[in-house]
Amino acid sequence: MNIICDKSKLLDGINIVLKAIPGKSTMAILECLVIEAENNIIKLIANDLEIGIETVIEGQIVEEGNVAIGAKVFSDIIRKLPSEQVEINVNENYQLFIKCGKAKFNIAAKPTDEFPYLPQIVKEKHVEISQFTLKDIIRQTVFSISDNENTKVMTGELFEITDNKLKVVSLDGHRISIRNVELNNSYDNISVIIPGKTLIEINKILNGGVDDIVKIYFTDKHILFEFENTVVLSRLIEGEYYKIDKMLSSDYETKITVNKKEMLDSIDRTTLLMKESEKKPVIIDIKDNSMGLAMNSSIGSMDEEIDAVKEGKDILIGFNPRFLIDALRVIDDEEITLYMINPKAPCFIRDKDESYIYLILPVNFN
Amino acid sequence: MNIICDKSKLLDGINIVLKAIPGKSTMAILECLVIEAENNIIKLIANDLEIGIETVIEGQIVEEGNVAIGAKVFSDIIRKLPSEQVEINVNENYQLFIKCGKAKFNIAAKPTDEFPYLPQIVKEKHVEISQFTLKDIIRQTVFSISDNENTKVMTGELFEITDNKLKVVSLDGHRISIRNVELNNSYDNISVIIPGKTLIEINKILNGGVDDIVKIYFTDKHILFEFENTVVLSRLIEGEYYKIDKMLSSDYETKITVNKKEMLDSIDRTTLLMKESEKKPVIIDIKDNSMGLAMNSSIGSMDEEIDAVKEGKDILIGFNPRFLIDALRVIDDEEITLYMINPKAPCFIRDKDESYIYLILPVNFN
Repeated sequence: MNIICDKSKLLDGINIVLKAIPGKSTMAILECLVIEAENNIIKLIANDLEIGIETVIEGQIVEEGNVAIGAKVFSDIIRKLPSEQVEINVNENYQLFIKCGKAKFNIAAKPTDEFPYLPQIVKEKHVEISQFTLKDIIRQTVFSISDNENTKVMTGELFEITDNKLKVVSLDGHRISIRNVELNNSYDNISVIIPGKTLIEINKILNGGVDDIVKIYFTDKHILFEFENTVVLSRLIEGEYYKIDKMLSSDYETKITVNKKEMLDSIDRTTLLMKESEKKPVIIDIKDNSMGLAMNSSIGSMDEEIDAVKEGKDILIGFNPRFLIDALRVIDDEEITLYMINPKAPCFIRDKDESYIYLILPVNFN
Repeated sequence: MNIICDKSKLLDGINIVLKAIPGKSTMAILECLVIEAENNIIKLIANDLEIGIETVIEGQIVEEGNVAIGAKVFSDIIRKLPSEQVEINVNENYQLFIKCGKAKFNIAAKPTDEFPYLPQIVKEKHVEISQFTLKDIIRQTVFSISDNENTKVMTGELFEITDNKLKVVSLDGHRISIRNVELNNSYDNISVIIPGKTLIEINKILNGGVDDIVKIYFTDKHILFEFENTVVLSRLIEGEYYKIDKMLSSDYETKITVNKKEMLDSIDRTTLLMKESEKKPVIIDIKDNSMGLAMNSSIGSMDEEIDAVKEGKDILIGFNPRFLIDALRVIDDEEITLYMINPKAPCFIRDKDESYIYLILPVNFN
C-alpha cells in the first residue's frame, strides 16, 4: 500500500475513527485502525465491537492495499508532523513508513486478516435529521442515563419514532429526560434502545450543522449513522424499555416560572457546602413571587432568594442539587417553568410544547 | 470584623495568597487564610511556613478585627458569588457571614491566635528588578532544579549579585541552566539559594509588567519579594552552592547554528517513539550544513534532517531528548547555537552575550 494525503485531512479522519478505539483491550487488533486503499477510496476503519466507524479521506492512492496500525502511536505521530503532504507506505513485511517534509518514521504494522471489519447492513428503514438537532437531542438527554450495567436498558436511550415524531428518553431511576422533536417526513414506527456510549461518541464527531443531514438506518440489532464521509455502526441494546407514559402527569398544585440562569447559579452555589460523605438536599421554598434556595451542611449554611412568578400553592421541597443542575444546564430557554404537586411527588420542568420534559424525584429532608 | 469589598478584587487577593496554602497539612490552621482589617487596611495572609504571603485589598472597614477561615471553602464560595459587593461579617463566636446580592452564606471560622503570622524582616539590602525580567529568569531556569530532597541545595536556585550583574543558576546533575542579567543599579555582593517552590509560586503571582518593579530584600535566612500590594516571604536554603565556573568552558570543536523551532519540533517528534521503560537517546548527527536527528526504539525508528550552519568538526552525539526540549522551549531566540567538543563532553547552548547558557551532558549510545 502506498498513499499520499494532506496531514490535516488525515488527522481529521484519524480523530473520527479514534472514537471506536478501546482504551485497553485484551485483543490487540482492536487497538489498531485499518487504512484501506482500494478502488480510488482511502478509508480509515476502527471497531471496538460495540461501535464501528469508517471514514473516507481525500488522498492519492499510489498503490492499493490495506494495513492495521496501532491507533495511538499512529495518531500521535501524524499529529506532530509538519502541515504538509504525508506519504504512507507499507512493505511486504508490514513495516509502515511515514514521510512528511524531512521527517521519516518507520513503525511495525500488521496485516488486516484478524481485524473485525464492520458487518454489512441492509439499508432499509431510515430517518433523516440534521446534525444540529441530533447533537442537541443527545446533549439534552444523555446526562441522565444510568451507568449501572446491571440494568442494561437504563444505560441506553429510547429512540421512538411515530409518524413524523421522534421521542428520545433517558432515565436512571431518580429522573427522566425526554425530548420530543418533529421530523420533516413521516416514517414507519420504530422503537430502539441506543447505547449511551454510542451517543456520546457520535456527539463528539458531529459538527453540528443545521443543513448537514444525518441518515439513521435501523435493523433488528444495529443502528447506523451516515453523515458526510463517515459511517458509525453500533449495536442496539436488547430488551424492553420502561413504560414512562404513566409516570408523566400534567396535574400540578404549584407552577412557578424563574430565570434559568439565576436559579442555576444559585443551586451551583449551594453545592459549595456539599461533602461527598453527607448528601444534603437543596431546599426550595416557594412563596408568593419568590423562590428561596437553602442548604445546610456540616460546612455551613447558605440561603438565597430569587424572583419568581407563581401560580397555585406554596411548597417546601428538597432535591439533589446535582439533578437540578444537570437539567438546567442543558435547557436553552431563558425562563423555565417548574410544576409540582407535593413534596413527595415528582417535579416537572417542561416547556409549553413539551419539546423537553425533565422529571426529577424530590428527596426527604427534616 | 465587618468589611465590604468588591467581589473581583477580593477574589484576586485570595488567588494570590492561595499560593501559600499547603495542599494538606497536619496543622489545620495552615489551611486557613487570615483576613485582617485594621488601621484602614484590609490584608489577606497565608503562610505554609516555607512561603508566607500578604496582600492588601481595597475595601471598606465597617468594624475592625481579624479572622482565620478555611482557604479552600472560602475561595470556592467567593469565586461563585455574583459580581457585586461582598460583605463579610464575623460574630463573637467566629461565625462568618458572607452576603452578596441575595446570596447569604454562613460558615464556621477561627480566631487567629494560633496563626503563624509572617516574621518581621529588617529591610536592609535590596535589589530592584522588573516583574517582566524576574518572570523570564524564573521560567528560563526553574525547569532544571532537582526534586531530590536529599540534595537540598539542588532543589533551589542560586541568585548571585555582583555589582550590577545578577546571575541565576539551577542544576540537577545532568544539566545546568544559567541566566545573566544586567541590573539598572549596582548593589553589594549577595549570594543566596532560593527554594524552587518559592520561585514557581512567585512566577504565578507576578503579572509580568515591564514597568512594574519588584523589590527583593535579603536577610540571612529569608528573601522577601515586594510588589504592588503584595509581599512574599520565603525561607532561603542553607548551604553552599556548587562551584559551577570550572564546569563551564568556551572551547569547542563543533559550533552549529539552527532554527530553534525546527530543531524543537523535530526532537518533539522523536519522543513519540520513547517508552517509559526504555530510555532511548536522540542521536544528533552533525555534518556539513545539516543536523540529523534520529531515534530508534522498540516502537519504531525515526529520522529527520534540518538545515544548519556549521563551523568545525562533524560529530555524532546522543542526548536525553527531554533535556534538549526543556532548554529549547524557554529560549526566545529564533536561531540558536550549540557548542560541542566530543560525544562525552557537555554541550553548550548559549547566545553571544551569554545572557543564557544551557549545559547539557550527552548520553552514551551504541
